[in-house]
Amino acid sequence: MFQINENYLKLPGSYLFSTVGRKSREFIEANPDKKVISLGIGDVTQPLAPAVIEALHKAVDEMANADTFHGYAPDLGYEFLRKAIIDNDYKPRGVDLALDEIFISDGAKSDSGNIGDIFGPDNVIAVCDPVYPVYVDTNAMAGRTGDYVTEEEKWSKVIYMPCTAENHFVPAIPEQTPDMIYICCPNNPTGTTLTRDELQTWVDYANEHKSVIIYDAAYEAYISEEDVPHSIYECEGADTCAIEMRSFSKNAGFTGTRLGFTVIPKKLVCNGTSLNSLWARRHGTKFNGAPYIIQKAGEAVYSEAGKQQTKEQIAYYMRNAKMIREGLQNAGFEVFGGVNAPYIWMKTPDQMSSWDFFDVMLEKYNIVGTPGSGFGPSGEGYFRLTAFGSLENTQEAIGRITKG
Amino acid sequence: MFQINENYLKLPGSYLFSTVGRKSREFIEANPDKKVISLGIGDVTQPLAPAVIEALHKAVDEMANADTFHGYAPDLGYEFLRKAIIDNDYKPRGVDLALDEIFISDGAKSDSGNIGDIFGPDNVIAVCDPVYPVYVDTNAMAGRTGDYVTEEEKWSKVIYMPCTAENHFVPAIPEQTPDMIYICCPNNPTGTTLTRDELQTWVDYANEHKSVIIYDAAYEAYISEEDVPHSIYECEGADTCAIEMRSFSKNAGFTGTRLGFTVIPKKLVCNGTSLNSLWARRHGTKFNGAPYIIQKAGEAVYSEAGKQQTKEQIAYYMRNAKMIREGLQNAGFEVFGGVNAPYIWMKTPDQMSSWDFFDVMLEKYNIVGTPGSGFGPSGEGYFRLTAFGSLENTQEAIGRITKG
Repeated sequence: MFQINENYLKLPGSYLFSTVGRKSREFIEANPDKKVISLGIGDVTQPLAPAVIEALHKAVDEMANADTFHGYAPDLGYEFLRKAIIDNDYKPRGVDLALDEIFISDGAKSDSGNIGDIFGPDNVIAVCDPVYPVYVDTNAMAGRTGDYVTEEEKWSKVIYMPCTAENHFVPAIPEQTPDMIYICCPNNPTGTTLTRDELQTWVDYANEHKSVIIYDAAYEAYISEEDVPHSIYECEGADTCAIEMRSFSKNAGFTGTRLGFTVIPKKLVCNGTSLNSLWARRHGTKFNGAPYIIQKAGEAVYSEAGKQQTKEQIAYYMRNAKMIREGLQNAGFEVFGGVNAPYIWMKTPDQMSSWDFFDVMLEKYNIVGTPGSGFGPSGEGYFRLTAFGSLENTQEAIGRITKG
Repeated sequence: MFQINENYLKLPGSYLFSTVGRKSREFIEANPDKKVISLGIGDVTQPLAPAVIEALHKAVDEMANADTFHGYAPDLGYEFLRKAIIDNDYKPRGVDLALDEIFISDGAKSDSGNIGDIFGPDNVIAVCDPVYPVYVDTNAMAGRTGDYVTEEEKWSKVIYMPCTAENHFVPAIPEQTPDMIYICCPNNPTGTTLTRDELQTWVDYANEHKSVIIYDAAYEAYISEEDVPHSIYECEGADTCAIEMRSFSKNAGFTGTRLGFTVIPKKLVCNGTSLNSLWARRHGTKFNGAPYIIQKAGEAVYSEAGKQQTKEQIAYYMRNAKMIREGLQNAGFEVFGGVNAPYIWMKTPDQMSSWDFFDVMLEKYNIVGTPGSGFGPSGEGYFRLTAFGSLENTQEAIGRITKG
């Protein structure tokens, strides 16, 4: 008789954003006259850049002719895209990467969920708390997290590294040594970052303790401050301890277009085995590449026009971030993030719980945000708003709050 | 100190098609004057259908405007596509499926590799031998296959069900009861099929023994004979024991466009837990949907024009299949498949090994095929050719062989 993966049964409730979505839908159905504005899920709203659209049309036309048709892509992704990534995202920051250290994928969510495949079942993971739920949930599915302790809203074997206003959202080195350290920087949901020195501390720690860092840099394009690294490989020694993930979702509006990549330097080894070779095997066996036309769209993000246009998109969202940040501050809220990231992280008023505040926001202001506790126990008492709405909706939403 | 997934170290050599690719490239580099024709990897060569191209352009234009832009897709995929699938692939065959029993993905390779996530580590798997290597390799990564026994070219815990000319490529019920039974029908690589009665035997067996069938129907569009089922759900009781995977790669030329889906009926349960809910959780946590424009392309496959055009594509490839089949037969080879599938499975002459024959084909005829032994021990002494080449190349290749 077949058996299921019983780790799945330990997962509490449903994926955070599914619950947010369901509650919003129910409210909208019950209140068809209300205009609900979503500043909840980190989904972009601006159209793809003209350079990307042009590249897509061109690639579609290629697929219409036998002479220019593209079937299966190379396992690691098309070289034109991997080269554009190296030349634009890494070389200018002094990071040397080989073409076969880049793996093109359908996005950072898939990669950050799937990366666990190449690690053993007994590794102890550490996560910033709060953080993007996919890291913990996928490790729970793999049996690395122990049991879920409902009273504490924590997994028994996970090392939580609180990132709160009290420690300026900088995780402290934990007492117990973790094997796998997940760092999302700029952080989702807090919108906060680590300085180069702070990140270097983690890289040194990982090398010393032979831990591996899974570094999610999905929001790096939003960094505006000088001393915040865009890539972990800007830190010395990161190539022997870190895997980096990047996404086209937020820097180029690809949430519905799906493209990302993972970097695994060949120097990253465990007992003589290169993690690059393990991921290459996984990638070649359980994945069949991102579509050709989407990889061409990704290449266009790095064209001169594409770079200019996506920069303007980011500026658009960051103007929203500023508006939310300042609007909430003026309304008397305590607010973080929103400077190097499209996320604004606010303290709930009067020590209200995150989900209670979710209800207030939805019912009183008809605004959908995301409850901080959904991102980890230290997110309790916080609330996330995103800058990905349209300018008009963001203005209207903030207007509702400031009017009280 | 972090540990890797040691199951990866047990995997013998590289993925079959990577080796075929490398050997071909080396030959081409060493013999730049020779025109090498690939009838090796099952990759299509004909352009996307005009209806699909039109839908892609239209969807790209939608992505260029904020009002029609699409961000993250629904977890299960867009309803327009799931509905088209049900209405065209299932309803006409008398199969009733609900919209939330279909999960859109980036292809059947990903799905057949990832499906193992929702099953326990101790399940014993059974595979047809020979078969598409992804089933065994991904179960090896998950630790379900025991150790690789080099002399036998077998995994110690896998139940191999030989499918050879001797048993007309119909797997016999094995002595040991498997928990998970992989059936690929029409089979890759043999191009052979099971009749409705033969498949019903397996469905009855699975229900009786509480095994689950992972049914890969990626080639169903090539079925030409009446008594071969297109879906396992045409068999009575399959909805309580079977998961079905489908692909747009071969019926609509999407190998480089990436789209597929998995069907998990809600009646398929294990100790009260629905596998549909487990896969929904996996899908929502480790995957973020196929691109909107690709899902629109998939919808166009089911339009009246799309159906007509993809039918013509399949007829094109099946004319190649007939040509290969008859050409090889006339040249004195023993040949199977090619009637309900785009694969032709030939016995090597003079009991030559599969890889030796690969070298002969490459060096003497400058044709790339796939060695049968790469698909499992019972594939030894066989060789696979695919019908996915162009008409001209296929003609030329067969001409070379028949001229001897």
